[in-house]
Amino acid sequence: MERHLKELVQQMTLEEKASFCSGLDFWHLQGLERLGIPSVMVTDGPHGLRKQAEGTDHLGLFNSVPATCFPSAAGLACSWDRDLIQQVGEALGEECQAENVAVLLGPGANIKRSPLCGRNFEYFSEDPYLSSQMAANHIKGVQSKGVGTSLKHFAVNNQEHRRMTTNAELSERALREIYLASFEGAVKEAQPWTVMSSYNKVNGTFASENPRLLNEILRDEWGFEGFVVSDWGAVNERDDALKAGLDLEMPASYGGGKSKILQAIQNGSLSEETLDQAVRRILTIVFRFVDSRDENVTFDKEAHHDLARQVASECMVLLKNEDSILPLDKKGSVSVIGAFATQPRYQGGGSSHVNPTKLENSLEEIEKKCAGKANVLYAKGYDVDSDQTNEVLLTEAKEAAIQTDVAILFLGLPDRYESEGYDRAHLNIPANQVELIEAVYEVQKNIIVVLSNGAPIEMPWLCKVKGLLEGYLGGQALGGAVADLLFGDVNPSGKLAETFPQKLSDNPSYLFFPGEGDRVEYKEDIFVGYRYYDTKQVEPLFPFGYGLSYTNFNYSNLTVDKSEAQETDLVTVTVDVTNTGTLAGKEVVQLYVKDVQSSVVRPEKELKGFVKVRLEAGETKTVTFTLDKRAFAFYNTELQDWNVETGEFKILVGKSSRDILLSESIKVVSLRTPKLSVHRNTTVGDILSDPILASVAPQVLAKLNENTPFVSAAEDEEGSEMMAAMMKYMPLRALVGFSQGTITEEQLQEAIDQLNAVYEGEGTTSE
Amino acid sequence: MERHLKELVQQMTLEEKASFCSGLDFWHLQGLERLGIPSVMVTDGPHGLRKQAEGTDHLGLFNSVPATCFPSAAGLACSWDRDLIQQVGEALGEECQAENVAVLLGPGANIKRSPLCGRNFEYFSEDPYLSSQMAANHIKGVQSKGVGTSLKHFAVNNQEHRRMTTNAELSERALREIYLASFEGAVKEAQPWTVMSSYNKVNGTFASENPRLLNEILRDEWGFEGFVVSDWGAVNERDDALKAGLDLEMPASYGGGKSKILQAIQNGSLSEETLDQAVRRILTIVFRFVDSRDENVTFDKEAHHDLARQVASECMVLLKNEDSILPLDKKGSVSVIGAFATQPRYQGGGSSHVNPTKLENSLEEIEKKCAGKANVLYAKGYDVDSDQTNEVLLTEAKEAAIQTDVAILFLGLPDRYESEGYDRAHLNIPANQVELIEAVYEVQKNIIVVLSNGAPIEMPWLCKVKGLLEGYLGGQALGGAVADLLFGDVNPSGKLAETFPQKLSDNPSYLFFPGEGDRVEYKEDIFVGYRYYDTKQVEPLFPFGYGLSYTNFNYSNLTVDKSEAQETDLVTVTVDVTNTGTLAGKEVVQLYVKDVQSSVVRPEKELKGFVKVRLEAGETKTVTFTLDKRAFAFYNTELQDWNVETGEFKILVGKSSRDILLSESIKVVSLRTPKLSVHRNTTVGDILSDPILASVAPQVLAKLNENTPFVSAAEDEEGSEMMAAMMKYMPLRALVGFSQGTITEEQLQEAIDQLNAVYEGEGTTSE
Repeated sequence: MERHLKELVQQMTLEEKASFCSGLDFWHLQGLERLGIPSVMVTDGPHGLRKQAEGTDHLGLFNSVPATCFPSAAGLACSWDRDLIQQVGEALGEECQAENVAVLLGPGANIKRSPLCGRNFEYFSEDPYLSSQMAANHIKGVQSKGVGTSLKHFAVNNQEHRRMTTNAELSERALREIYLASFEGAVKEAQPWTVMSSYNKVNGTFASENPRLLNEILRDEWGFEGFVVSDWGAVNERDDALKAGLDLEMPASYGGGKSKILQAIQNGSLSEETLDQAVRRILTIVFRFVDSRDENVTFDKEAHHDLARQVASECMVLLKNEDSILPLDKKGSVSVIGAFATQPRYQGGGSSHVNPTKLENSLEEIEKKCAGKANVLYAKGYDVDSDQTNEVLLTEAKEAAIQTDVAILFLGLPDRYESEGYDRAHLNIPANQVELIEAVYEVQKNIIVVLSNGAPIEMPWLCKVKGLLEGYLGGQALGGAVADLLFGDVNPSGKLAETFPQKLSDNPSYLFFPGEGDRVEYKEDIFVGYRYYDTKQVEPLFPFGYGLSYTNFNYSNLTVDKSEAQETDLVTVTVDVTNTGTLAGKEVVQLYVKDVQSSVVRPEKELKGFVKVRLEAGETKTVTFTLDKRAFAFYNTELQDWNVETGEFKILVGKSSRDILLSESIKVVSLRTPKLSVHRNTTVGDILSDPILASVAPQVLAKLNENTPFVSAAEDEEGSEMMAAMMKYMPLRALVGFSQGTITEEQLQEAIDQLNAVYEGEGTTSE
Repeated sequence: MERHLKELVQQMTLEEKASFCSGLDFWHLQGLERLGIPSVMVTDGPHGLRKQAEGTDHLGLFNSVPATCFPSAAGLACSWDRDLIQQVGEALGEECQAENVAVLLGPGANIKRSPLCGRNFEYFSEDPYLSSQMAANHIKGVQSKGVGTSLKHFAVNNQEHRRMTTNAELSERALREIYLASFEGAVKEAQPWTVMSSYNKVNGTFASENPRLLNEILRDEWGFEGFVVSDWGAVNERDDALKAGLDLEMPASYGGGKSKILQAIQNGSLSEETLDQAVRRILTIVFRFVDSRDENVTFDKEAHHDLARQVASECMVLLKNEDSILPLDKKGSVSVIGAFATQPRYQGGGSSHVNPTKLENSLEEIEKKCAGKANVLYAKGYDVDSDQTNEVLLTEAKEAAIQTDVAILFLGLPDRYESEGYDRAHLNIPANQVELIEAVYEVQKNIIVVLSNGAPIEMPWLCKVKGLLEGYLGGQALGGAVADLLFGDVNPSGKLAETFPQKLSDNPSYLFFPGEGDRVEYKEDIFVGYRYYDTKQVEPLFPFGYGLSYTNFNYSNLTVDKSEAQETDLVTVTVDVTNTGTLAGKEVVQLYVKDVQSSVVRPEKELKGFVKVRLEAGETKTVTFTLDKRAFAFYNTELQDWNVETGEFKILVGKSSRDILLSESIKVVSLRTPKLSVHRNTTVGDILSDPILASVAPQVLAKLNENTPFVSAAEDEEGSEMMAAMMKYMPLRALVGFSQGTITEEQLQEAIDQLNAVYEGEGTTSE
């Protein structure tokens, strides 16, 4: 329906407009009956709807209407499957329509800087490309149903510790290449209806009051068209936030926000046009929902549950499979040990907490699989609510394990270990679970561990288990998915979207997380996740991109369609992948790019493409990647732009970040010619190695340099390497000093002018 | 002799004064015959005099007058022996007097940030306390002979790469606690006659033009009384340098410096008093030398050589002694393999290069030891000038090794691998040396390696050798020292003054060394050397403070004289050390302090005391340490001062940074009461945990908080941990937002005022 929003805004009074930029209550925007503006609802929950029937908390403390609980983002990302994420989004969109929800508050695209962050289970990855792809497809799915999303928490909100007051300090490169890139891709590709600004400060300014982030980067650079909403309670000064580009304050401020806006307009520090623009942006989205609202939508709970099960089985990651202990045969006997087998940990705590439509448990699902074929014993093993070992439970567990061919241990992190609101202090699972592994190991060497956890843990006990399935927080159907995977009804295809470190202190942020007082410095800079582990050569427990299958895949025929490309060219890469095993399966083919030489520090390699492909046994498919400038570029802080430096790049294709099978080289040519601006502290080496100046520099310098001791000394053979280095690093002005008075400042200036003249007429120069 | 320097300066013309602030030539200051001011000489060489007979280079390219070449600083520091370093200083001072040299240009107190720095062999340590102690005692020794020193290179000059133009960017804490602390201790304890400013920029300003470093910190804070001289060629703009506190420009600028000073005085940007002050400072030192000049001094070359040999044997570090292969018996047969055994690498390249009075070689010294007792074979093994394997030499080496009971391999870094002027790019020894180890290992398992190198190397071949003696650059008598140690005539007592990493990438600066263009960011911050390896839990190849002996030492009876100390108290620590072996020996007893809890990140532990003690077999001595405030303090950036936080500290005493044998606790009480300034973004948790506010805060907050959903939600048990965290991190202003309109901004301000009133009258507040 066509509407004239501009006119609608004109019909609103100043007070109405100022009021409209804050919510009605905890979950509703304000409406305006007089003008036919409805009050629409937004709800939490990127992996499931959390529409509260009543009450006003947004903390997951009170129950909400039943909704399908899908795996949380940490798990979803391990599917590396764009289509699958989109399907999840579509299902979520349907449930929103069914519940008359205008905007689902998600997905979260924050980067996993530290595994300790309490909210990591809600985020996708340590890699911005993977994260942005997952977020984009989630958004596309939800929004295809005429429901909005809110890409959150924008930006650099990577810890719960002091999240409402802390100031994240980071370099422009880390900001651009890591933390913003994860949002940038999603905004550009999927255009979320809304973006949610985070609680924290970024380089000194609250994200909610940050014109650089909200207006300049998000809107002007990336072309975001929707409205920006605050995280709940993130607004510090309402008028400053409005000026910075934050349109909607949530939740309601009961007149507080309105009065600050009115005051600012009255004293002239805020223009009414800024207010109008915010109101127009909000109205645009409200009416987009109104226009796409379909009151007839209901959703098929069973179908969504089945989807949740399928999704969960695509997300879980097989981390260890010694002696091919998995998949299990449906015969003999198995013991199922651990409280999580019957009290599943299937989602995280906090605002994303969903009230599931139903809930599978792993024990029952395993019993179903084995019914009439294999004998299943169960022992609780440990108390979920305590870290204390319960000797009775331990004894029961050993008794069960000793009677069976194999023991499946259900372990992981209890709710109290990870949640929105606070970070973990260590990467351990509860001590009683470790003791359980050790106790069972005394009587049973065929141990399989199934983990439920939202983020990496340390595994000093890894050598004691033969099979390890990382289940993340698998949603309401995790039980069936686990059973499907353990018994081979589904072939595992998940790959880690984050590095599992050997120990917490290996993490790049370790020394500087979570900061001092209200200041956290990102000193590891761009070296986040595998970018750090690979470049620093720190061996992870399990690397980024890693995951096993019950079949094998071979890679061959890597081709790059050109050996030299202009930076504006698209580069096409293909590789043949063959399933050489006897089972059908899916493989995540990963493409990384390595810059062979650079004027700035760059990671050993960076993920720039991935494809998930399904292959029957024996089947071969050709997988194609397309790389653009960004695949080769870094963010050049001086140029304030993405920049490719002319030179060689390696295209690396493999099964994980640490299992590169094939590589090819390509030369990429920059269209930007760097110009050297010569001054008294420009070094001789820089001048001689400049491609343009190199033609005239030797004679200019030779003239200048005629009588310095360096030239004569350089003829002495012994010191030649030192001499060469000294001359290379010598600033021009030092030639004067070392010349014994034979070079004057005037001659120096003349030489500088001569060199700068070479570029004359070629436009502006940069150092 | 009493002089009235102020009057002397008054008698100088403006031109004479301006001219006086630059050198006469490469090595001489200007004199002024008219006023009886002599031209004095300065020379390079902290570990030996490098007085050039003629010529003007300062690069070690031309020969200088013969002088005793002591081990370079990297080795000297491994003695951990204050008295020994002072003796070296005294010997150097005598040689200066004998050669009429006024100032010896050293020692260097730069911190070893990266093992790659080409000039590390001239620096003492990665630890500022050890470095400052070594430097202070070197200075005391030289200056006790009426000769000046020049503590260099001030400051933050930790690489050769682009050293004349690069800008070292680092935090105030890293600057103070690591890089400046190394100079601070030496200046305060030994008052060097001069300090040499470095080439590089520090946080944006050339060290030579840096008033913060030269005037405020060096002079005003630390009380430095001498003159500041530029590193050779380090002056960028002479007038800016003078204003910043750089008194003497070296070498001569042939009128260049003078004319800039005159110009600046004429245009009013520089005051004549500033110039006068610089001239006075220079004159003070010149006449101090004149007054202490003793023309009758000669030095005993043989005695100094013997000292050099003793010193070298105290500096070398026994790193491995499997099967107690060392000391060797003087019987049977040994093969001496490797060109370094006859062409010793005994000093580094560049300005410190000394022309030795004589030069021992290891082969001859070993032959002397063994004469008539054991058979000694020699094989060259490799070419020093090439990395290529010479098969003939390899075959000879194997033939020698197979015939003897044990093979001693002389290996290390050739001159071309490390020098002033450029940094290394890797930590390898030449490939032909590694192949030599492998070839010898095929025929001889009893391998001892003696290393000559100025800085750490990687040792992938370590498992193939039983004995390993780190000789550093051992000076002209290294041959005898090596023989003394190998055959047990001297018991090794050196301990590493720096960490040897397993691999280069383990080094904390690895990702950010040597920087991008003219910018190097010290992102590892205070985590330099063992501070990083210990805190990040990275296993080194050999840890800081490590070194073996032929005897054993036991530690017992650690006492700390108080369990609680005020920050102004001195704390006395004693420990008994017993030689439990059968040989006399020396032990370096090390004391580290660990801050158990801190509001800022701190290293796992920091060296705060060491004593080298000689013990006969069976003897016990009590070693005493005195700790002052600095032993417990960090540099508080907000307070711009050293700060101890009240709390528990551990006193750790051990044989190395990774071999702590005893520990005790002490509570240190700060005399500074932190005051919390409450504002709208102060968190509830901070207010409740403030010791002063805690008394009134609960009632103020309770009143404010009466009707928020958080209070009611907090009563829900499940979410209690999240709720507790949320409230703790909640800024006051968010209480307004979440109050559903029941708290007004006015009430908030009232609460803030009430809280701030608690501190009223108690002086200034800080956040």
